[in-house]
Formats: sequence, structure tokens, C-alpha cells
Amino acid sequence: METTKTETDAAKMGIDPSKNKVTLVVFSGDMDKVQAAFNIALGAATMGMEVTLFFTFWGLNVLRRHRSKSVGGFLRRAFDYINPGGARNLPLSKFNFGGLGKSALRRLMDQFSMPTIEQLIAMAKEANVKLIACTITMGVMGVDQDNLIDEVDDLAGVFAYLGEARESSVNLFI
Amino acid sequence: METTKTETDAAKMGIDPSKNKVTLVVFSGDMDKVQAAFNIALGAATMGMEVTLFFTFWGLNVLRRHRSKSVGGFLRRAFDYINPGGARNLPLSKFNFGGLGKSALRRLMDQFSMPTIEQLIAMAKEANVKLIACTITMGVMGVDQDNLIDEVDDLAGVFAYLGEARESSVNLFI
Amino acid sequence: METTKTETDAAKMGIDPSKNKVTLVVFSGDMDKVQAAFNIALGAATMGMEVTLFFTFWGLNVLRRHRSKSVGGFLRRAFDYINPGGARNLPLSKFNFGGLGKSALRRLMDQFSMPTIEQLIAMAKEANVKLIACTITMGVMGVDQDNLIDEVDDLAGVFAYLGEARESSVNLFI
Repeated sequence: METTKTETDAAKMGIDPSKNKVTLVVFSGDMDKVQAAFNIALGAATMGMEVTLFFTFWGLNVLRRHRSKSVGGFLRRAFDYINPGGARNLPLSKFNFGGLGKSALRRLMDQFSMPTIEQLIAMAKEANVKLIACTITMGVMGVDQDNLIDEVDDLAGVFAYLGEARESSVNLFI
Repeated sequence: METTKTETDAAKMGIDPSKNKVTLVVFSGDMDKVQAAFNIALGAATMGMEVTLFFTFWGLNVLRRHRSKSVGGFLRRAFDYINPGGARNLPLSKFNFGGLGKSALRRLMDQFSMPTIEQLIAMAKEANVKLIACTITMGVMGVDQDNLIDEVDDLAGVFAYLGEARESSVNLFI
Repeated sequence: METTKTETDAAKMGIDPSKNKVTLVVFSGDMDKVQAAFNIALGAATMGMEVTLFFTFWGLNVLRRHRSKSVGGFLRRAFDYINPGGARNLPLSKFNFGGLGKSALRRLMDQFSMPTIEQLIAMAKEANVKLIACTITMGVMGVDQDNLIDEVDDLAGVFAYLGEARESSVNLFI
């Protein structure tokens, strides 16, 4: 059992087991904010904490397959067009200036061997970070389970999120 | 007494009473973020948790009457013009593209019978979610109590917010 | 020892010592969000709480010296150009409209004698709020310690942040 394992790790590291959970809502689909979410998640997992990332609204794009198409009529296809989805297509929250900001940041990150979002997802999986897709957002955006990457651990709604969040010592909305 | 009632509900549902409070700062006035705040608030209230939404900065627009005018000179009126206020006038945080993003999302939400912000406010009131307006923001924006909708429970500042927040198991800045 | 002093203040004020810490991630470099972060920090410090502000990503700009230049090649200089840094140069998250939104808000704030970000930094220092610069962001942006203002208390990474955050009763991502 994953939870027990993590608790044991935490106990070994002298961590108060009641302060061992991190739950992050990833609302944003911006590359920089998603990067920040994964940095915190991976740091916490490395420290032996139990981490859940709950992807909702624009954040769901992180979990969509590259160039996956939504299910639905004209409106959904139009929405898809302006909101392409997939970890490779995330915009930057600021200084986008026709793409200069993003490519400049990406090249700086390459110089520092900083991982891409796709690499961060793989690292998160190895570190037992749980990746949850928000079912309400999936409904609105016409995304079904086949449109999501295999790394998704679970589909869940607001009650499951709150059940985790209220037991967590670190809750952030990103 | 409302608090006692909620605590009793929570106890009935087997919820640890020390983990029963949710306090959300609604800083953003963007439709999508405000929607996310209400979704979390309503979910928590349904689970028997005690929920406070603290509207500050742009988030205060949610609580302004439709087309209400600020009190003050030219500068305030100019500010009003670019920041119209009222739950019906909230912008979208991303993909606004001349309004296409917002109207497309709104029509998708209609297809799914998702409530408007005005409906969410009414649902929040029925679920005993507390709606608090930030007094500092009211001062800066020239908004007085008459400019706010009747659903506002209280006006308060940062100390009242922190008093609630530090007793809450879920604190988010949205 | 600062911590002990704060704990004593809190005890005097009847505050549960296990609910006495506030840790804010300042990810955003937008003037309005940074203002909100300092308002919460100063309020909490006034209440006798122990407050840490962790500046990361765009938030690091708050701690950069006015017109300080990054260390590095062409790409870093281009990045500097679109991301000038310094508390006086923060953009506004919304309604910027060629600067009108920001200058209008600034003038309203002046009318209400609201402090500038530089004044807020000084007030935070007096109130024993800890200002931490994120080392990962410093690396990516080519910012070294000489580029940071003297008010910075410490440089730290994600583990130090999480160590503080999980002992805090109020954690926000701003």
C-alpha cells in the first residue's frame, strides 16, 4: 500500500505524520505556473510527503494527450482551437510577446538542464505523486478518459479534492 | 447559532471538528477563477464544512451591484469605466480573444446547465457560505455598502480574515 | 532568538502556538498581487504571527535592485529587457490598458496614503517578516546575491519552503 509506505518513509525521516500531506489545485494551464506546481510537488515527494495534484479548468490541458481532440460539436471544436491542450502546448502567463518570452524562458531552462513539463510528469510518477483529473472540467471541455495521458491516476470531483485537502498541511491553488 | 449547527452536522458526518473550516481569498475577478472558488465553497458546504469567502481587490467586483457606480471624482469614474463591476460583467482570465473565449465557455456551460455567478451566489447563501467584502478594497475603489449586493454577510479587514484562516484546514488564494 | 520572541508575543495574545505561522509563496510579480501578499503578511505580523514570504519566479523581481542587470549572455539580457525587475517596475495583473490602469490605481492609492511596494518592504522588515529569495529562480534568471536588495533575509530552495509551509496554519500561493 502506497500510503503506508509513504507514512513509513516520513516516520523514518522524523516527520510528524499529521503534517505529511500536500494537495495542490492546478487551475492554471500556464507553463510557468505548472512548472512551479511540479517543483513543489517533487520537492515534497523527495522529502517523503504524500502529494496529490488535482488538475482543473485550464490545468486539465497538462493531462491531455498531445493534439487530442475534444468530443462534441462546432463550439467544442472552436474551443479546442483556442485551447489546444497537451503538455507541449502550454502558454506562458506573462511576457508572451508573440512567443518571445516563452521561447527565451525555454532556452534559458535548457541551458540549466531544467526539465520540460513532459519530463516533470514522468518524474512525478516515479516519485508517487498522484495526478488527478477533475471530472467537472472534463465534462465542460468534452474531454473523456481516452483524451488523457496514461499517467493520470484517477478522475475525481470536488468532494474527493476536499477530502484530501482538509487532511493536508500544505494546500495551494495554483 | 449557525456555527454550532454546522459543527453538529460535521460531527454527524464523522468529520474531525478541527478540520472543518474552509477560508478562500477571492482576489481575482475573472469569471473562471470566481467559478472555481464557488465550486470549492459549495462542495465544502455540502460536506458540512464551514466556509468563508473573503472578496478582495478585483474579486470585490463579484459583490458589486450590477452597474453600480463608485463614489468619487474623475479618477474613480475612469477606474469604474475600465472595471465595471457586477457578477454579470466578469472577464475571463485567458483566451478572451475579443470575447470569443468567454461567450464560447458560457455557451458550453449553458449546455451543461452550469450555473451563472449570480446563481452561484444564491446557492452559496442557501448553503450558509459566508460572503465577506474587504473594507480596504472598498476604500480604494470608492465602493460603499450601498454599492454591494444584499447577499454580503459582513465587511471586514485583514485581521478578521487571518482570524478565520488560521483556524481553517483549507486556505486558498484564488 | 526571533522565533522565541514571536512565540512569546503570540502566547501573550492568547494565540495557539501551533497556529502561529504564515508562509506565502509570492510567484507573481504583478503589483496588485504583491500588494495583497504584503497586506496579509503585515496584518499577520501585527497579530504576532511568524511570517515568511518566499519570492519565486516573477515574484523575485520584487527583491531585485532597481535596474539591476542579470549576469549572462544575449538571452538573459533580452529577458531582462522584457522583465526589468525592481519594486518600482512591477506591472499590474489586469486592466493595464497602456499603463492607464496602473497609474490610475497608483493615484487612488496615493489619495488613500497607501504605501508603495518599497515602503511595504521596509514595513515588513520592521515587523520581522522574513523575505526569502528562491535560489532556483535566481539561477534561471541569472540573478546573483549582489542583484538583490539588502532587505533579503535568506536564499533558499523548495525544501526550506516546504519545511516552513508544513508547520504553517496559513499557506497561500500568490
